[in-house]
Amino acid sequence: MARTQGSHSDITGPRIREAALRLFARHGFAAVSMRQIASEVGVQAGALYNYIPDKQALLASLLRGHMDDLLAAWQAEATTGDTTEKLERFVRFHIRYNLERPDAIFISYMELRNLTPENFAQIEALRKTYESTLEGILRDGHEAGRFDVPDPAVTTYALIAMLTGVNTWYRSAGRLTVDEVCDIYWTMTRRMIAASSEA
Amino acid sequence: MARTQGSHSDITGPRIREAALRLFARHGFAAVSMRQIASEVGVQAGALYNYIPDKQALLASLLRGHMDDLLAAWQAEATTGDTTEKLERFVRFHIRYNLERPDAIFISYMELRNLTPENFAQIEALRKTYESTLEGILRDGHEAGRFDVPDPAVTTYALIAMLTGVNTWYRSAGRLTVDEVCDIYWTMTRRMIAASSEA
Repeated sequence: MARTQGSHSDITGPRIREAALRLFARHGFAAVSMRQIASEVGVQAGALYNYIPDKQALLASLLRGHMDDLLAAWQAEATTGDTTEKLERFVRFHIRYNLERPDAIFISYMELRNLTPENFAQIEALRKTYESTLEGILRDGHEAGRFDVPDPAVTTYALIAMLTGVNTWYRSAGRLTVDEVCDIYWTMTRRMIAASSEA
Repeated sequence: MARTQGSHSDITGPRIREAALRLFARHGFAAVSMRQIASEVGVQAGALYNYIPDKQALLASLLRGHMDDLLAAWQAEATTGDTTEKLERFVRFHIRYNLERPDAIFISYMELRNLTPENFAQIEALRKTYESTLEGILRDGHEAGRFDVPDPAVTTYALIAMLTGVNTWYRSAGRLTVDEVCDIYWTMTRRMIAASSEA
């Protein structure tokens, strides 16, 4: 029944996702109706159901899509270099990637509570996969004697929270460029894990 | 008109705030009605309006109350000690205080977007006051040559995000006690700012 092929769908599907992302981020998942999303896209409410079974499926698809894209982007980034270089690349990648997607990051944190248990488990597994790439780098560096990591699991949580936090305060019109912000966070990160490049 | 004194009000007011906090945290501000809050408290919907003019005032009062309590608790904590001791106390205080109030922390971050501009400005000013106590400690330590802080404003954001992040993963039934968590975060913090107690 679902119309997932053809030029009309190719345009309307992404527009529905963009509108839903924007509305969920602004008003919250619970406050947004399928009718509002349809009106934002400029289609009849009924037409939405050709693309997506319901609002829950739309939220899950947005959050899953965000995690899939994030993991693919990191895969493309993470091919070469030693452990310290990999960690530096992760820090800069995470900040830049998140700053470019404020709405997706916002709903990825805010709307987890509105997922069904099945959808939550799926998104949570993707999030764990991403976190474990960072934890792997920290463990590798620690075992190789390049880092001194207090507790790799806790340090992973601490780093992800610290880096993701940039989204809450950074404004491109402010006194710092994204590069300068990345430099400061990389300095803090290598000190935290006592990376041996820092004498 | 508002009934803010007397034994009935003394009991019902706090119960309304507790119920609202719990419901906002679970379902989101936009999804919760005054009727639901009344039903959770066990009073008629109309009775709520003896205590609070509307849902917006209730949200603002909860967020303001949280910030007032936080600032008062930190004042009570922060009286003595040198800069390094003050910073250590801040780290441990922030983690413990937040872990004890998961619902208040959650809505303090999630529901800022649902405040009116006037209420937002008020809460934001209180938040700035709290952040600037940490920034002040970092600047004092930096000027005294005890810390090497890359950028006091950015380091403040980074630390607050990192410390507040504990709420998203810590479970009291897990492998670490709160004391052990505080120890790990203090190690990471003093390394980040190169506190001179760390040789």
